[in-house]
Amino acid sequence: MNEFDLIAHYFKRPAKNADLGVGDDAALISVAAGHQLAISADMLVEGRHFFPDADPERLGRKVLAVNLSDLAAMGATPSWFTLSLALPKIDETWLAAFSRGLLAMADEYDISLIGGDTTRGPLTIAIQIAGSLPRGQALLRSGARLGDEIWVSGPLGAGAAAVMHRTGRIKLVDELAKRCDLRLDLPTPRIALGQRLRGIASAALDISDGLLADLRHICEQSACGAEVWLETVPFAEDLHALPESLRQEAFLAGGDDYELCFTASPDQHKAIISLGVELNLGLTCVGKIIPGHTVQLLDANKQPLPITFHGFDHFAYES
Amino acid sequence: MNEFDLIAHYFKRPAKNADLGVGDDAALISVAAGHQLAISADMLVEGRHFFPDADPERLGRKVLAVNLSDLAAMGATPSWFTLSLALPKIDETWLAAFSRGLLAMADEYDISLIGGDTTRGPLTIAIQIAGSLPRGQALLRSGARLGDEIWVSGPLGAGAAAVMHRTGRIKLVDELAKRCDLRLDLPTPRIALGQRLRGIASAALDISDGLLADLRHICEQSACGAEVWLETVPFAEDLHALPESLRQEAFLAGGDDYELCFTASPDQHKAIISLGVELNLGLTCVGKIIPGHTVQLLDANKQPLPITFHGFDHFAYES
Repeated sequence: MNEFDLIAHYFKRPAKNADLGVGDDAALISVAAGHQLAISADMLVEGRHFFPDADPERLGRKVLAVNLSDLAAMGATPSWFTLSLALPKIDETWLAAFSRGLLAMADEYDISLIGGDTTRGPLTIAIQIAGSLPRGQALLRSGARLGDEIWVSGPLGAGAAAVMHRTGRIKLVDELAKRCDLRLDLPTPRIALGQRLRGIASAALDISDGLLADLRHICEQSACGAEVWLETVPFAEDLHALPESLRQEAFLAGGDDYELCFTASPDQHKAIISLGVELNLGLTCVGKIIPGHTVQLLDANKQPLPITFHGFDHFAYES
Repeated sequence: MNEFDLIAHYFKRPAKNADLGVGDDAALISVAAGHQLAISADMLVEGRHFFPDADPERLGRKVLAVNLSDLAAMGATPSWFTLSLALPKIDETWLAAFSRGLLAMADEYDISLIGGDTTRGPLTIAIQIAGSLPRGQALLRSGARLGDEIWVSGPLGAGAAAVMHRTGRIKLVDELAKRCDLRLDLPTPRIALGQRLRGIASAALDISDGLLADLRHICEQSACGAEVWLETVPFAEDLHALPESLRQEAFLAGGDDYELCFTASPDQHKAIISLGVELNLGLTCVGKIIPGHTVQLLDANKQPLPITFHGFDHFAYES
């Protein structure tokens, strides 16, 4: 099986949201008038972003999920993606499972694979994804204003607990480890939430490096500071099994849940609570935007706490 | 230096052709009414697509050039690209040179880097590029018709000769090796030619796997056959130094020149000759579209010749 057969066999399907998909020098796309494209790219490397024994079907789902999550954080509606894949060898069992997971995820979000590249090399997966949204309505990182409330979706930390377990830092009982694994392997991109936050949120991003680290990006780009109220941050029930310091690290510095963090004027407080009920999604106010340029963690008495861990940095840490 | 600093330092510049570039969850793009986007993705792996000792500045130019070449083959005007980069370590000398070459090439074609990703891993470079063109005017692989002439740009084979030299299959004298190296390292994407071929060519692609192998893609997608007249195929002067069999292999099966192959009605013959003069670019008629579904190589007496080599296949061959 050569390169062309491989693409045709595993990845070529009729292209939705595109005029021409896989098979020519490029795909062709039309964009509706009055809309913008939101474009994001991610690269995942074996041994760094996923374990060498990762289940290929779950992996296929996850690589698309983390890219969809970037679109969610912009408030965009996903349209299509490309896939570039370096494979150490042609392993048909692996490819069948990987493409099954990837394309199932694509179906769930009604997007199509419009192009890409395969080559031999150390297992590396690069995806670029595009979505569309009405011009000028994107949720940027630069829109937070003094006094805005800071919100997060979902309970945080289960994905990070799974990483701690797999790397031997903690030992979870089987059932609990499995639940946390599910969060790590199969994060749910918050697409519907992102779309509904257009016109409500002032700034947004997806938590991929940990709440505190990612909030720093909003502070930098919005030229503001932030305070986070430790006692209010919603964490996964399973984290009760962890010692307090590791629990805090998991939900404050773990980025593996791909939930959204966003800011909004206090005027929107009730609308956001209603939205959470409507989407059946936990939405919790965990702090507010303040003057300055740093992220502060406050205890129940609003006293500053030291921050002794850091967000995942792709170069500062080894996996 | 962490991941964010790295992007900001080496790759972030004001975005042209984009409403928002590097630095948020996604870039934002507006597309003109009546236009389509052409989207292509390529992945290059060290040791497979480039040599481990490759000059990083040339490499930066080349990775963008091969992606631009795909847009040329569609007749599109390049607009922007994303870059995903896996690096074994942060080597600032390498990064400075690589980004210099990449961004210089981007400047020459007036496009901007709008997003991407960096991570630690075996040196791998994934680029996705987009261009625009008036709706419905793309040069597809599926448009060739019986009786159409087959054309190629530029003399072919110098890039392949450089590969043969570097891998020890042939020994070129220094000056000649340097000239062939230049073609291999710094191919010129035929953007202007592609744009001008809109409305003239019936089908087009860029020669990245070798003339005969790539022509097969046109035959498959256009449901036709092709004959190529060996004596007419323009090859680089430097190839005279090669034995005949290797010379033929270089210009018929070498894909490293990134020239265009296209088909057009004989009615367009004169217009194409004029276009070659205007663009100061060799454009040569090398065959024609015939019934059937195979690519035949004919000698000066129009007798079929055996084809004893194959185009570069990313999986069938080891580098």
